[in-house]
Amino acid sequence: MFKTVALVGVTGAVGRLMRQLLEERPLAAETFRFLASARSAGKTLTFRGREYAVEPLTKESFQGVDLVLASTPDEVAAEYLPAAVEAGATVIDESGYFRMREGVPLVVPEVNPEAADIDRGIISSPNCSTTQMVLALKPLHDAARVRRVIVSTYQAVSGMGVQGTQELEESTAARLRGEEYRHAAFAHPIAFNCIPQIGREKEAGYTSEEMKMVYETRKILGDPSIQVCPTCVRIPVANCHSESIVVETERPVSPADARSLFEAFPGIKVVDDLPGGVYPMPNTCTGSDLVFVGRIREDISRPGGLSFWCVSDNLRKGAATNAVQIAELLARRRFGAK
Amino acid sequence: MFKTVALVGVTGAVGRLMRQLLEERPLAAETFRFLASARSAGKTLTFRGREYAVEPLTKESFQGVDLVLASTPDEVAAEYLPAAVEAGATVIDESGYFRMREGVPLVVPEVNPEAADIDRGIISSPNCSTTQMVLALKPLHDAARVRRVIVSTYQAVSGMGVQGTQELEESTAARLRGEEYRHAAFAHPIAFNCIPQIGREKEAGYTSEEMKMVYETRKILGDPSIQVCPTCVRIPVANCHSESIVVETERPVSPADARSLFEAFPGIKVVDDLPGGVYPMPNTCTGSDLVFVGRIREDISRPGGLSFWCVSDNLRKGAATNAVQIAELLARRRFGAK
Repeated sequence: MFKTVALVGVTGAVGRLMRQLLEERPLAAETFRFLASARSAGKTLTFRGREYAVEPLTKESFQGVDLVLASTPDEVAAEYLPAAVEAGATVIDESGYFRMREGVPLVVPEVNPEAADIDRGIISSPNCSTTQMVLALKPLHDAARVRRVIVSTYQAVSGMGVQGTQELEESTAARLRGEEYRHAAFAHPIAFNCIPQIGREKEAGYTSEEMKMVYETRKILGDPSIQVCPTCVRIPVANCHSESIVVETERPVSPADARSLFEAFPGIKVVDDLPGGVYPMPNTCTGSDLVFVGRIREDISRPGGLSFWCVSDNLRKGAATNAVQIAELLARRRFGAK
Repeated sequence: MFKTVALVGVTGAVGRLMRQLLEERPLAAETFRFLASARSAGKTLTFRGREYAVEPLTKESFQGVDLVLASTPDEVAAEYLPAAVEAGATVIDESGYFRMREGVPLVVPEVNPEAADIDRGIISSPNCSTTQMVLALKPLHDAARVRRVIVSTYQAVSGMGVQGTQELEESTAARLRGEEYRHAAFAHPIAFNCIPQIGREKEAGYTSEEMKMVYETRKILGDPSIQVCPTCVRIPVANCHSESIVVETERPVSPADARSLFEAFPGIKVVDDLPGGVYPMPNTCTGSDLVFVGRIREDISRPGGLSFWCVSDNLRKGAATNAVQIAELLARRRFGAK
């Protein structure tokens, strides 16, 4: 088993969930440690029946730590995680900072588990909107070679962390009372509105969130020739990202074939009965670790093309669950854990 | 001027707005009449400073009427509007019932005004999600010939009429109080959720709303070879539909060219400054008669392709405004009205 597992960023939305997942799941370690910014340090938390003090994150925090699970903003990851690697740890990082670095594995365990096979260093977990898409694309890519993806996202406010959720609730309540609300988490009002920008402008008129879907997809699927055209939109949904996806493959994939491929792939659940009004939605997918696929149909604008709808819990499979699954993958590889 | 203009369905969301628009705009008639279902008949309303009784809609309602503006469910349109045509009227119909009929013009005045040049009969106004898209596509089609469109919609609840708006507000308030809500207007909860189905299953795994975007686009642009792959999604937004659109044209269109084409086209307003956080959103477009376009950029998955974001008030340009503009077009043609 691991000697010392350190969780970094334990008071954020994803950090809390990682802790909760580790309560439920069997990852074994002699010691757990919980690190957060100075603001949160000193708080106590209960984990697997024991009380722990939250320690302040410093560059000296990682002595004797062999595994780090980190969920922090990019700049915090950049400043502190290299110290963990120097101290000998393997770091599973939720931030975007190291993802596209040469030599840093970017891992979705169902898709490219072999990439996680390193002894120390940083393993990045992808951006939430990439993870669910790439998991759905993988069986199609293996069977028919994905060439081009056009995706429009419908992203929940929980992707902005605790503040995002709070702002949706408070601003919606204010709007229903006819009151003004000073928004802060989002650049524009989110109550009963949608915002076609997530992240900053990155390149060619695309946002940083959108370009993550381009570059991370290529890296995870190991195919730099895959073309992706993304549009990322924040909508007033509490939790779970939804994606409208159109795929062009080298060899045609019928909707029936796609359904079979999705059903046979680990981590995907097909929920698809349009006449019955059955398809994945945020309110039915929240709290699950799976990626849900529905509205599977031919792209009627292109023979042999495919269109589908994909929903997943962005805090779980899109973040915390994926990180914990990477840790479990390492435990199996290194210690033969089941 | 027109002798008698009859408004049908005056108590619905679109009917009310048509009345309001006719208050503001100069369409001239000797007489106006206001018709609605038996349930609403007998109410009185004030229009241009006069009181009117709402009359019950019957097949005998149309004697002496030369222009009808109708906003009703499909089955009401099917039953009553042919009687108006028999009585000699020109009928501008918001419903979907006649739109795809051979010989029935389907008109967006900025796009295909010539189609409205009939002496009597039905002129259909397109589905709201089609109208805004086709208006944005028209200058691209004229300049470079649109071949394929991939569109994902973010549709407001006001498209379901007064009940849709009420259900969003009530169910959201209930959810914020932690209470259950029995939804009725929508098949699934809409509060903080999104629903990837609008209308019934129509064909090939697509919904009726989606197939409207295919067939109506071809008819309005007069080009049956245009391919459209639509995904229509209801989101918890009060008013204004948004659309993420990717277009393939025969000749390449640069983002700069597209911007110039949009800016020069009547009825379109370009709102596009991503670094400044400026783009169309429902909360900034509601109440306008224009179609707003932003996020204009190259489709990075295909050289020469284009992607953009399009928002419009679905009750106004998507319905009431378009119908009133068709009436104004007829008035100009027939009476030289300005």
